[in-house]
Amino acid sequence: MKGQNLYKKAKKIIPGGTMLLSKRPEMFLPDLWPSYFSKASGCEIWDLDDKKYIDCSIMGIGTNSLGYGNSEVDDAVLNTIKLGNMSTLNCPEEVFLAEKLIEINPWADMVRFARSGGEANAIAIRIARASSGKEKVAICGYHGWHDWYLSVNHNSVGENLNKHLLPGLEANGVPRDLENTVFPFEYNNFIQLSEIVNKNDIGVIKMEVVRNVYPNDDFIKNVRQLANKNNIVLIFDECTSGFRETFGGIHKKFGVEPDMAMYGKTLGNGYAITAVVGKREVMESAQKTFISSTFWTERIGPTAGLKALEVMEKERSWEKITKSGKLIQKKWKEIAEKYNVDIDIKGIPALSTFSFNHPKSLEFKTYLTQEFLSKGYLGTTSFYTSLAHTDEIINKYFEVFEEIIFKISNCIQEGEEIEKMLKCPISHSGFKRLN
Amino acid sequence: MKGQNLYKKAKKIIPGGTMLLSKRPEMFLPDLWPSYFSKASGCEIWDLDDKKYIDCSIMGIGTNSLGYGNSEVDDAVLNTIKLGNMSTLNCPEEVFLAEKLIEINPWADMVRFARSGGEANAIAIRIARASSGKEKVAICGYHGWHDWYLSVNHNSVGENLNKHLLPGLEANGVPRDLENTVFPFEYNNFIQLSEIVNKNDIGVIKMEVVRNVYPNDDFIKNVRQLANKNNIVLIFDECTSGFRETFGGIHKKFGVEPDMAMYGKTLGNGYAITAVVGKREVMESAQKTFISSTFWTERIGPTAGLKALEVMEKERSWEKITKSGKLIQKKWKEIAEKYNVDIDIKGIPALSTFSFNHPKSLEFKTYLTQEFLSKGYLGTTSFYTSLAHTDEIINKYFEVFEEIIFKISNCIQEGEEIEKMLKCPISHSGFKRLN
Repeated sequence: MKGQNLYKKAKKIIPGGTMLLSKRPEMFLPDLWPSYFSKASGCEIWDLDDKKYIDCSIMGIGTNSLGYGNSEVDDAVLNTIKLGNMSTLNCPEEVFLAEKLIEINPWADMVRFARSGGEANAIAIRIARASSGKEKVAICGYHGWHDWYLSVNHNSVGENLNKHLLPGLEANGVPRDLENTVFPFEYNNFIQLSEIVNKNDIGVIKMEVVRNVYPNDDFIKNVRQLANKNNIVLIFDECTSGFRETFGGIHKKFGVEPDMAMYGKTLGNGYAITAVVGKREVMESAQKTFISSTFWTERIGPTAGLKALEVMEKERSWEKITKSGKLIQKKWKEIAEKYNVDIDIKGIPALSTFSFNHPKSLEFKTYLTQEFLSKGYLGTTSFYTSLAHTDEIINKYFEVFEEIIFKISNCIQEGEEIEKMLKCPISHSGFKRLN
Repeated sequence: MKGQNLYKKAKKIIPGGTMLLSKRPEMFLPDLWPSYFSKASGCEIWDLDDKKYIDCSIMGIGTNSLGYGNSEVDDAVLNTIKLGNMSTLNCPEEVFLAEKLIEINPWADMVRFARSGGEANAIAIRIARASSGKEKVAICGYHGWHDWYLSVNHNSVGENLNKHLLPGLEANGVPRDLENTVFPFEYNNFIQLSEIVNKNDIGVIKMEVVRNVYPNDDFIKNVRQLANKNNIVLIFDECTSGFRETFGGIHKKFGVEPDMAMYGKTLGNGYAITAVVGKREVMESAQKTFISSTFWTERIGPTAGLKALEVMEKERSWEKITKSGKLIQKKWKEIAEKYNVDIDIKGIPALSTFSFNHPKSLEFKTYLTQEFLSKGYLGTTSFYTSLAHTDEIINKYFEVFEEIIFKISNCIQEGEEIEKMLKCPISHSGFKRLN
């Protein structure tokens, strides 16, 4: 298996094996995951042995809501490469994309671009801190790998990042001086957030508007009011949630406007582009500090973003991927109930995920992935939808899903040993040192 | 002029107007710089009015040492786009590029990739701090926009970043808690560095091996010995200097090996890719912390890097761009002396730059740029060379240069008023708030 051979080599020369934790083969199927791709189109992926799979898993971790290789986006990028993707002068597309993002976010006036979500998060924090004049930040959710964020795990009291997608994380190499500069709060826990704001001189609140569950009652509105009352810059991190349920931020659903928001992931349908949008009075503070990088001037990102937004708007992609996502959640539930397998379904419909409520949940997840793979699917406990996922593809996926759930139910109800059914080690669930 | 009109709009919706300080039109020719490009090829750039210029200035700030739109690199990228640039699986090119960089840096064992130089710098600092177990860093040179670096300007005593390419910078929004975590030292001042190391518990030294001038005597070797003696991780930031004088880091010239090095800028010949290479015992510490980003898995960067290195090696581009750069420095000097204009020439030959030794240096620079532009050149006080800069192009550039220097000499020697010869405001030299 060429992919696994290459990955063995990769682990010797790339610490962690890959550039993204979520794409580590061990997160799916240790020793058996195809690991690398030669070709991708729609929701199909070919591995290094030219074996084809249907991707019913994370779709590039949510980067391709229009499917892999959308022809309109690709054609725009190909044309940019023919014309030239870089020069001493700037690319006009960044101005056009800024205009478009302001149109989509009518509360916003200004935009900065970067090329990764971590960067967009760090830019937003820098600008917000410069604007508020206060350094302390309250956060809820996943906001990248940078020092400002991981420093939460140095805090002497209170919660760490365990509840924010990063359980077990060691923040080695993050300056300890940043202790107690960033305070995490639990989603939907407004009382906790209020206490954090009251106890500390919080200048910035940054949160994912929706990650696993939806807001209770007026949670989002209450956060907005709290920010107003305390002169706090409110930032919505829409890197993951953007363009999944609305044409723009998921915050549109709740009638609340932030002071800043970040978009990433699917903004360029697989090409690297991320954006920070915000109100003029906040964003202008970018000029009181230094935020600048050579490759943020590269032309492919804004080209792809501009065209991807055009295609999304034309296709109303957020409606289609939400509809597919709801269908998936419904069918997961039906089949699990049919076989008496207890699962928890979470996430924005277009970014659906579930977990087995069972001590052997990871064994079951590994088995599920193993069996899907043998049937030609990249399939696991997440299904991120794209325009390429037709009802036909989804229905066929569920034929396989049902077979696998039937076998898992045999383990639960009949005592069959899941361990004997596994052809590889159990998948990782978080941080592990790789050898 | 379409470019200036678009830029006026940009300043209203993008704080700072552009993504990179060095590409701000005000840094060249306020109100008159073409600002945006429609097309770029070799060393030619077309603006939004389809007017053509020869780029004898910063060549995308040094991103394109093979020239704009190198056909071999572009063909590789086009092919990657046709096959698919993103998927749930990883791209094999990142492993191949890692192998190649280890071949080029035989002292190194492992590699991580990012998409911007600031990121590569922040990754290197994180890994180095995690490895050394000590947080304090000594720096020399320009290392990006991140908190860890700009915090130098919060230090209560000693030097700030004024001598490190960022004079006048306000570090608003950078946590003050980071005060005295990073200490700048002057290039070629080994005594100062030794004192910093003796007084503080320095765990990391990060420096540009060459920026404006070359090392005195054994400066680089002495730094290496100091690092060895004090168990300090030594990092060479080769983002700018890499592949300019050697096939790899400029450190190869001085017979000194670092523990880590970063490459960026020209590594992908205009496509966004940056790398951190390092010794195994240091790099493995990346696994004791969290460094991960979705778009670091995008396939264009490693595709371009791999092919650009192949073309560089075949063309021995570093020799050619150095030869051109030396010719440029020589001719600048000859012509300036001929007309009694006092200039200071600095920089790696392939990244040559000069300044007028005169109270009106900025006025002269603005005039130079203005006159070059009127003759169809992007020309200023910097000339970054590429394979596209043939001797013929360089010779023609110098015909224009000589005419302009003659007129500047008239201002200096005959008292002609440079201000009256300017059709626009004086260019900016650093940080200014844009309206």
